[in-house]
Amino acid sequence: MNDFVFNSPTKFVFGRGYVTRIGEETAALGLGKVLLVYGKGSVVRTGTLDKVRSSLDAAGIAYVEAGGARPNPEVNFVREAIELARAEEVQGVLAVGGGSTIDASKAIAFGVPYEGDVWDFFAKGVKIEKCLPVATVLTIPAAGSEDSGSCVISNDAEQRKLGVSGDVFRPRLSVMDPELTFTLPPYQTAAGITDMIAHVCERYFSGVGAVPLTDNIACGIIRALIDAAPLVMADPQDYDARATVMWASTLAHNDIAGCGRSLSPTVRAGGWESHALEHELSAHHVEVVHGAGLAVIMPAWMRHVWKADPQRFLDFARDVFGIEPVDEDVEPHDEAVADAVTAAIDELQAFFVSLGMPSTLGDFGLGEQDIEPLVETLRLNKGEQFGAFMKLSMDDARAIYEACL
Amino acid sequence: MNDFVFNSPTKFVFGRGYVTRIGEETAALGLGKVLLVYGKGSVVRTGTLDKVRSSLDAAGIAYVEAGGARPNPEVNFVREAIELARAEEVQGVLAVGGGSTIDASKAIAFGVPYEGDVWDFFAKGVKIEKCLPVATVLTIPAAGSEDSGSCVISNDAEQRKLGVSGDVFRPRLSVMDPELTFTLPPYQTAAGITDMIAHVCERYFSGVGAVPLTDNIACGIIRALIDAAPLVMADPQDYDARATVMWASTLAHNDIAGCGRSLSPTVRAGGWESHALEHELSAHHVEVVHGAGLAVIMPAWMRHVWKADPQRFLDFARDVFGIEPVDEDVEPHDEAVADAVTAAIDELQAFFVSLGMPSTLGDFGLGEQDIEPLVETLRLNKGEQFGAFMKLSMDDARAIYEACL
Repeated sequence: MNDFVFNSPTKFVFGRGYVTRIGEETAALGLGKVLLVYGKGSVVRTGTLDKVRSSLDAAGIAYVEAGGARPNPEVNFVREAIELARAEEVQGVLAVGGGSTIDASKAIAFGVPYEGDVWDFFAKGVKIEKCLPVATVLTIPAAGSEDSGSCVISNDAEQRKLGVSGDVFRPRLSVMDPELTFTLPPYQTAAGITDMIAHVCERYFSGVGAVPLTDNIACGIIRALIDAAPLVMADPQDYDARATVMWASTLAHNDIAGCGRSLSPTVRAGGWESHALEHELSAHHVEVVHGAGLAVIMPAWMRHVWKADPQRFLDFARDVFGIEPVDEDVEPHDEAVADAVTAAIDELQAFFVSLGMPSTLGDFGLGEQDIEPLVETLRLNKGEQFGAFMKLSMDDARAIYEACL
Repeated sequence: MNDFVFNSPTKFVFGRGYVTRIGEETAALGLGKVLLVYGKGSVVRTGTLDKVRSSLDAAGIAYVEAGGARPNPEVNFVREAIELARAEEVQGVLAVGGGSTIDASKAIAFGVPYEGDVWDFFAKGVKIEKCLPVATVLTIPAAGSEDSGSCVISNDAEQRKLGVSGDVFRPRLSVMDPELTFTLPPYQTAAGITDMIAHVCERYFSGVGAVPLTDNIACGIIRALIDAAPLVMADPQDYDARATVMWASTLAHNDIAGCGRSLSPTVRAGGWESHALEHELSAHHVEVVHGAGLAVIMPAWMRHVWKADPQRFLDFARDVFGIEPVDEDVEPHDEAVADAVTAAIDELQAFFVSLGMPSTLGDFGLGEQDIEPLVETLRLNKGEQFGAFMKLSMDDARAIYEACL
């Protein structure tokens, strides 16, 4: 078990109908005035936003609103909200939405006390030292942003999508009400589940060998998602399955599934190869939903890299899918291993497809000609090599994209 | 999944040789002067205390000392330390030790800002509202007190041992250095592992049916402990196995293994039947180590209650031990279930015994005549009935104690 620092300070208030508790819980944080951040429509349409406003009103909490955060939130939205937050002297930021809205809210929260431009944190690596308290009402379980020390922002002008990490902007409070996800469309539900599994896998295949306790937790999260997913797809109002998916979104990304798996204790476990490859995809093609992109990229990445540490993939095959090498003839053992690993990756990809996720770049209408631009900005963001499980060159990246065609 | 509130704010700094980091991490909490609390000898003998002092000195942190906390810490020690902490105007409490030292430190930390007697919190149910920050350097993984919202204190004059729960006194910081546990004697190591498994089991058998995500995590923790335990017993300096045990002590009791399993969202999951039964044992017989008491009590409790929800025990048998009912003849299915459940309980008890734990009250030198006093104080503490998985009357309690003879 490698050294690690783990700090997940978020207070989770999780339960049926709990959206109405956001006011009293925000008051308990000592906040009297907040910036209320939300997206483009679904929280309005479903009435969630009104419930939040009523709850804030009832608790005597003042608020100003910054609506319209889009998927893959854009830095200009963040900049404008920072100005508003400063002018209104809010004490905290309350996100009502999914990962995009929460990420925008985090960037606003650490942008307010910073004198320079908020994009500096992303593009120039400026250290984030101060942050307003962030609270969330989660409506789309996927990104795990309701607890994580992650924040990803897009910059359309630069055609870049960059992330920062840090404990200072982890939310102080997350109200999680699985009923809010009853109306989530199947595609978004499936993309969210795919994203969660990817968050666990990025840590599981981190270039560190087995860490039994953490690995048991990681595989337990994935198995729970694989079991709950068909229930949710069959009945969007299956409360227990929705609750499993919602809580899994948090545990998949709050680092509990990565403890002891980091190469450095102050850096998140994993090389985040699939995420890096996918981020280029949705930076260039805004219509690509992050989780759907991962459903295509991650199995291709696995097929490309598994031979760098077959045992790790055998552990995964056994503990997630109950697949073990069958080599009764003993020789050739390598083939039995390859069969088992391939069967596990096949099963994972088939699971994504069973949820309605794409399996090729063609499913997004993309072809051979779209690959080189992805590699070019990947090189810009990552240099000539990146990754932890296996170092990926730009040729590796190109080969993985091509395998997705 | 039942509603829950989960808040585990402790910052964990976990790694090889990390005891030397306590100074800088305490400073990062903003504390300039602390009360340094420790036990009766091992932290002195092993040099751990000197490392802590040096680290505090190097970080410029002032401290006064309250040494001599005993196993099953006593309220008079706490009272005296509270007076010292007040007189010296410390800003926080730093525990160096195991669960007993940490529990004493918590009681000191919430006793200082309280005007009345600290025992009021335990005996009169006074709500704990204020608390000095608590930090820990864990040396004995077992009780999970390095993160938990639990605190148990004994009162010799009243022959009682009572606990309180609350998030307000959860430690803000825990430095966890598995190397500090290399010198832990086998009996204490084994008792600690038993205690951890009991912490998971109390939540697992909480009177709530399956909660798949939480249950996967719970069983994953137990399996990791069962796998690591023989390695630690065979080689006390097996770093990875020691690290697994140490981190498991936290996860077993920080409530991650109980999310969604509570009957009420603000109350910890589980009826804590085995703990309640064991607490009487070590309150009356101070020489009984808590974990060793649990090794005797918990299997007997399981055999007494499993029929109240056989499916829950079948889940446990399958997910921890891979044991499933064998009923190829179909009839009688009940017998196959009983066989599977009994086999799992047998295997759990055999595991405890394999670590050198006792299996009967006789192993503590206790007999028939010692049971009634336990039942009497149990009644005083719990009333005529208690428990969540199955309500236990005092007759049930007596029967369980008798089954331990």
